[in-house]
Amino acid sequence: MIIVKIGGGATINLKGIVQDLAELNEPFIIIHGANALRDELARKLGIEKKVITSISGYASVFSDEAAIDLQMLAYAGLRNKRLVELCQQHGINAVGLCGLDGKVIQGRRNQGIRIIEKGKRRIIRDFSGKPKSVNKELLELLLAHHYIPVLAVPIIDEENFAINSENDDIVAVLQQALRAEKIIQLIESPGFLADKDDPTSLVKNLSVHELITREEQVEGRMKRKLLAIRKLFEASQTTVFISDGRTAHPVQDALAGKGTIIQ
Amino acid sequence: MIIVKIGGGATINLKGIVQDLAELNEPFIIIHGANALRDELARKLGIEKKVITSISGYASVFSDEAAIDLQMLAYAGLRNKRLVELCQQHGINAVGLCGLDGKVIQGRRNQGIRIIEKGKRRIIRDFSGKPKSVNKELLELLLAHHYIPVLAVPIIDEENFAINSENDDIVAVLQQALRAEKIIQLIESPGFLADKDDPTSLVKNLSVHELITREEQVEGRMKRKLLAIRKLFEASQTTVFISDGRTAHPVQDALAGKGTIIQ
Repeated sequence: MIIVKIGGGATINLKGIVQDLAELNEPFIIIHGANALRDELARKLGIEKKVITSISGYASVFSDEAAIDLQMLAYAGLRNKRLVELCQQHGINAVGLCGLDGKVIQGRRNQGIRIIEKGKRRIIRDFSGKPKSVNKELLELLLAHHYIPVLAVPIIDEENFAINSENDDIVAVLQQALRAEKIIQLIESPGFLADKDDPTSLVKNLSVHELITREEQVEGRMKRKLLAIRKLFEASQTTVFISDGRTAHPVQDALAGKGTIIQ
Repeated sequence: MIIVKIGGGATINLKGIVQDLAELNEPFIIIHGANALRDELARKLGIEKKVITSISGYASVFSDEAAIDLQMLAYAGLRNKRLVELCQQHGINAVGLCGLDGKVIQGRRNQGIRIIEKGKRRIIRDFSGKPKSVNKELLELLLAHHYIPVLAVPIIDEENFAINSENDDIVAVLQQALRAEKIIQLIESPGFLADKDDPTSLVKNLSVHELITREEQVEGRMKRKLLAIRKLFEASQTTVFISDGRTAHPVQDALAGKGTIIQ
């Protein structure tokens, strides 16, 4: 079993990825992003990203209903279905699902953010949260019948609302359930970079132990990403390939070790 | 088994429909439209409907790539996933699929339209076609495991391209495969009207024989719709309920005979 995470950047070579996946002799599942498409659509629709600042001074994106609508349009809609179409054209019998479908990715909604509004303290709650479990039975049912699940956000919360979540965290929850031998993450970069601004600083190999050291050296989003990668090793032994999604053969290149291999 | 077709009009009471469906004691599948949502999105995105005129003088909508993108955004994306969310909130374990997913609705692409362009005759082909078959195994697999399929366009053609198709025709193909005892069609009208411009002209009961007579009396889109309804009776005995999707309890009302019953 392989979990394939496809980044949502504009320069990701989806066709090359699907061509490579069609050659695999192992079952796999796909989870994909669509952030470039989402941003483009938001711009065209005039929907602005809402950012709120908590009392503690921490700024974060506020996922209101319109943000979830946008996610359904871009991730679960256009990107998911065009990717499924591409899979079908290459002989992969894909079934595209968002986390709501059959409750395939279940999460817990964030409790809310403390803000000060018109001089008063209040808590506002958006539609975002953390994935907690997957519907393993549904995924295995599909795989057993030779369907390839192609997953996207939004996911479903404990009260059956659609919520936004990070794909890195979803991969970790998928791995807890599926215990894949390989996890391939295809991004807009040659792999894990020692210096994020220097594309020649590719780190070819990392141990889980080194991952912890790196985690202590970085900040913000990268720290969260590294933490999510470390979680992948908690459920069972696996190999994580972080590799360039922009090449002619992204999956072949990843498995051949052209990016970063973590084990 | 019940097939429930939900119209894509702006005034359809989706919540009322889902509340009613949650009370049913029979398995069912849903197929839904999203035309009002699609038109609204097209307007916001500045995408204009392309209409072309054939040599024979017949005008038709041309489904180019942008039209299919729009369908994936509105039908398979936003409407499908919000409807799945609503189902989950009412205890219905829905799985939203478009026709591409697991090739669940397969069709044949239209051959093209003869036009004259710059004085020359040529054939242009769009992404539209007729549904021909369904992946009955996938639908039955989901139903057997208590998942409710929630279907939407686009469907998949013989070369694995996404194509547009009429929901009326898809219902007919579904019925050939599933032989449902009841087919409920929820629309923005009290039911089948003797005079389409007079909402008080509701026809309460129709026999299949009367359907043929009516078919001969009408034109255009309505003729196509009646033909599609007549096809529903070809596979097996069934009862078709055409009823108002705007009431507080659209499904209850339909089954209680408040709209049109055809048998």
